Amino acid sequence: MALSTAMNMMYNINHAPAIHSAGVNCLPLQTIQGHQKTAVPVDCPQTKKSSKGASRLAESLSHLLHLHIDTPPRNHNNEHAQIINWNSLTEEKHSTPTKSPKEIISHKWHELHGSKGWENLLDPLHPCLRREIVKYGEFAQATYDAFDYDSFSEYCGSCRFNKSKLFEKLGLSNNGYQVTKYIYAMSHIEIPSWLERSHLVHDSWSKHSNWMGFVCVSDDHETRRIGRRDIVVSWRGTVSPSEWYEDMQRKLEPIGSSAEAKVEHGFQSIYTSKSPSTRYNKSSASEQVMKEVTRLVQFYKDKGEEVSLTITGHSLGGALALLNAYEAAATLPGLPISVISFGAPRVGNIAFRDELHQMGVRTLRVAVKQDIVHRMPGLFFNESLQKFDDITGTLEWVYTHVGAELKLDVRSSPYLKGSLNLTGFHSLETYLHLVDGFLSTSTGFRSNARRDIALVNKACDMLVDELRIPHCWYQLSNKGLVCNEHGRWVKPKRDPEDIPSPTAHDHHIHHSLHLIDQLDDNNSQLQPSYVF
Amino acid sequence: MALSTAMNMMYNINHAPAIHSAGVNCLPLQTIQGHQKTAVPVDCPQTKKSSKGASRLAESLSHLLHLHIDTPPRNHNNEHAQIINWNSLTEEKHSTPTKSPKEIISHKWHELHGSKGWENLLDPLHPCLRREIVKYGEFAQATYDAFDYDSFSEYCGSCRFNKSKLFEKLGLSNNGYQVTKYIYAMSHIEIPSWLERSHLVHDSWSKHSNWMGFVCVSDDHETRRIGRRDIVVSWRGTVSPSEWYEDMQRKLEPIGSSAEAKVEHGFQSIYTSKSPSTRYNKSSASEQVMKEVTRLVQFYKDKGEEVSLTITGHSLGGALALLNAYEAAATLPGLPISVISFGAPRVGNIAFRDELHQMGVRTLRVAVKQDIVHRMPGLFFNESLQKFDDITGTLEWVYTHVGAELKLDVRSSPYLKGSLNLTGFHSLETYLHLVDGFLSTSTGFRSNARRDIALVNKACDMLVDELRIPHCWYQLSNKGLVCNEHGRWVKPKRDPEDIPSPTAHDHHIHHSLHLIDQLDDNNSQLQPSYVF
Repeated sequence: MALSTAMNMMYNINHAPAIHSAGVNCLPLQTIQGHQKTAVPVDCPQTKKSSKGASRLAESLSHLLHLHIDTPPRNHNNEHAQIINWNSLTEEKHSTPTKSPKEIISHKWHELHGSKGWENLLDPLHPCLRREIVKYGEFAQATYDAFDYDSFSEYCGSCRFNKSKLFEKLGLSNNGYQVTKYIYAMSHIEIPSWLERSHLVHDSWSKHSNWMGFVCVSDDHETRRIGRRDIVVSWRGTVSPSEWYEDMQRKLEPIGSSAEAKVEHGFQSIYTSKSPSTRYNKSSASEQVMKEVTRLVQFYKDKGEEVSLTITGHSLGGALALLNAYEAAATLPGLPISVISFGAPRVGNIAFRDELHQMGVRTLRVAVKQDIVHRMPGLFFNESLQKFDDITGTLEWVYTHVGAELKLDVRSSPYLKGSLNLTGFHSLETYLHLVDGFLSTSTGFRSNARRDIALVNKACDMLVDELRIPHCWYQLSNKGLVCNEHGRWVKPKRDPEDIPSPTAHDHHIHHSLHLIDQLDDNNSQLQPSYVF
Repeated sequence: MALSTAMNMMYNINHAPAIHSAGVNCLPLQTIQGHQKTAVPVDCPQTKKSSKGASRLAESLSHLLHLHIDTPPRNHNNEHAQIINWNSLTEEKHSTPTKSPKEIISHKWHELHGSKGWENLLDPLHPCLRREIVKYGEFAQATYDAFDYDSFSEYCGSCRFNKSKLFEKLGLSNNGYQVTKYIYAMSHIEIPSWLERSHLVHDSWSKHSNWMGFVCVSDDHETRRIGRRDIVVSWRGTVSPSEWYEDMQRKLEPIGSSAEAKVEHGFQSIYTSKSPSTRYNKSSASEQVMKEVTRLVQFYKDKGEEVSLTITGHSLGGALALLNAYEAAATLPGLPISVISFGAPRVGNIAFRDELHQMGVRTLRVAVKQDIVHRMPGLFFNESLQKFDDITGTLEWVYTHVGAELKLDVRSSPYLKGSLNLTGFHSLETYLHLVDGFLSTSTGFRSNARRDIALVNKACDMLVDELRIPHCWYQLSNKGLVCNEHGRWVKPKRDPEDIPSPTAHDHHIHHSLHLIDQLDDNNSQLQPSYVF
């Protein structure tokens, strides 16, 4: 969709007739490039004014486009197949632990957290940074793995587990963090496929909100290892590169006190929307997260601890992470704030980027070369257009990326199929696999990478068939139905503690943190009958 | 596919231009019927010879076609929705047992087994017959539920469970039968999508054979209830109405000693193929099943018991059931033999039907009106063409159905969507649901039907959304992958007793039957290294 729109745009610029492409798999790149060279009208009055700029622009667009969709040579996988004994590899891998002992990084956490913009840490990738990136990526992945996607479920759009059990249920018990707060979001603009629950579900836990992420904080052991108390916000994104990105590209709107900094209206709507008539968004996601982060920062600072804030997210979640970082930097000056995002789209304009930088927010964007989402919005109108100012005029409406980039390539991994797969290229598990195997741009896949390769296929079909891992295998037994004592297949009731509640204050976790969660003032007016 | 072919055929007969239909969902029936009336050429030399027959044929085809694809009125489901309180229905159903106490039918088993051709038992449907039909249908369903569909599995195409545990694993422990033998089949003709295992699986349990069904026998308790020792053969079919039915319609070939009886070559190939180089088909499915049935009949007759043979199957399995019945009747004269089939295609010609009848085989075909498979092969060239003998000439090549028919209608159930759904209409669970609810052609769905409604959606999307049952919910947790002690997602090894073995002789079951299974003579030459 995005690609065909892009193709049409390109043709319109050239005033060449649009060719109806049979599909993204077989875009006739050579034909298009040949077309450009011959078909750019030199004397056409309508285009004369900007013909030079247009020509250069078209060339650049074609180049950009080529980058998006080039696929590896056909014999790519065969080559690997010849040198890899898949069966023995599988056997060997199956009995290798996925984790190594964790290094102590307390003496270099500032650098790993981006204090120098990750200079000299990305290529080659510093082993300690690699592990930290994967750690934060797994926080983002947790927001997918625990999400209730069942559109017939009364809890569709919520987290399937209580926050005190989230990491345990996902096999992340030993990650050294504890969840302190769930974040919910709604939106004041209509976003297709964002609220997927069926209209038939009248007893829904919420009609307007989705579970959008969580706040967690390092425990004492992890805090000693990493040299500071680390507060993490993890934002949920979208699993597949869906069309609603297009819908969200409506307009940039101002953010903060500056008149110049602008961000995408759709992202901002999710981050800031609230409504007194809802159960979970009497306060906005922004208010929820800032209240919790402020509380935690205050609590640990009062104890004399060094504190950092790390915000992570994939896709849409990466966009929300930047908005969150912007607000946190303005609200909590002096706090070291980093964003580690995966496959995130552009969020705002150049002034937004500059203000983030001035406030000291450090951003590391992990981007897979073949993934299209991190090129959106602003697939065409982005920072690369600065040289075309005869066309673009002002840069106020030009989207731009922020911070340092760790660029990954699907072709670097011998375990991945190279064929065009928009969902697979965008999948967070593909990102984490590629981070785990990345040494440097000039060397091959890390031979001693330990992350379980099978995870890549959880929600896509990216692994070479030789590995014999089913595609999209992450699924519940019988889609959650169980056979009851009468022999009937029913959806079991959730454990009461796993039922979302806007007034939840779970004592397990807060006991261990010596914190008492405060009820949300807005929510304390809730009718008792509403609390289920 | 079949439908569009059918549409083209109809048009060719009328010599009217073919209209490219947008899809099976919106076949322009009225237009077609209108077309016929005006477009039949009266004077065209090419068609004059058979114009009268062709016209009548076209009319008949249109009528047939109309029967296939007519959908219920648009407000069908809405009407039901207005009178059904889905939530309270769901609550109530969830706590109602799915089984009633079984009646003793020992005094009327001959009639229920078809001794009088099920006369006066089908409309209204006798309650005891209804339960027996469902019982046999669940044997057929078991062949789907236990089949290993995983194309990456080394056991793809086998049964996932040992025969002594089959019913237990599927929640059918109390059905009163015990499995004594598994049947394997291969084919000497190429049947697309029949052997689905990946070419990458070099360690496959078998390269040529599929698990194709089982033989089971009633235990003492059930034998007393039903009045005889009941030997059952259950044949596996295909879950969806796949295109390979078309491929199998190659030619009729002779069967048995008669020169006239003919059956479809493809079905016969599956039933009779064998090869000494295979592991599981050194003997054919026919030889395997006849050896076991003969053994069981002899064993129980020697004990002075009354014995019956009931053969069941859905889809392709129903076709194999008829071939099996034909052979059994010829081999074991005097044995009461019934076939109860579900959505089975036509198998042979009229002589085949007549011979089956003469040998005393009783056949009850359960057919859903909207299902297309039971109209194949011979969707057009079948017994309804007897009146068009100026066109068809001889009837030797005309497919025909056999026996009595229990006709069901998707629209009779308020729980089912009416919209065109070829997979759903053909699904065996849909059939069993409709049998369970059938009273008579003139009355509505049985209000006290107890079979669990959720089962319908196991492998399709037929239930109205109001029931909030996920579609295609019958699935393994994580497609069978489990996280091992190293944190890696792997396919666990099968329990040794669940690994298929051509020489299997399980003592559990045979102890309880006081039978010692004899090793297959062919298989006893197997190299020890082959037995895994």
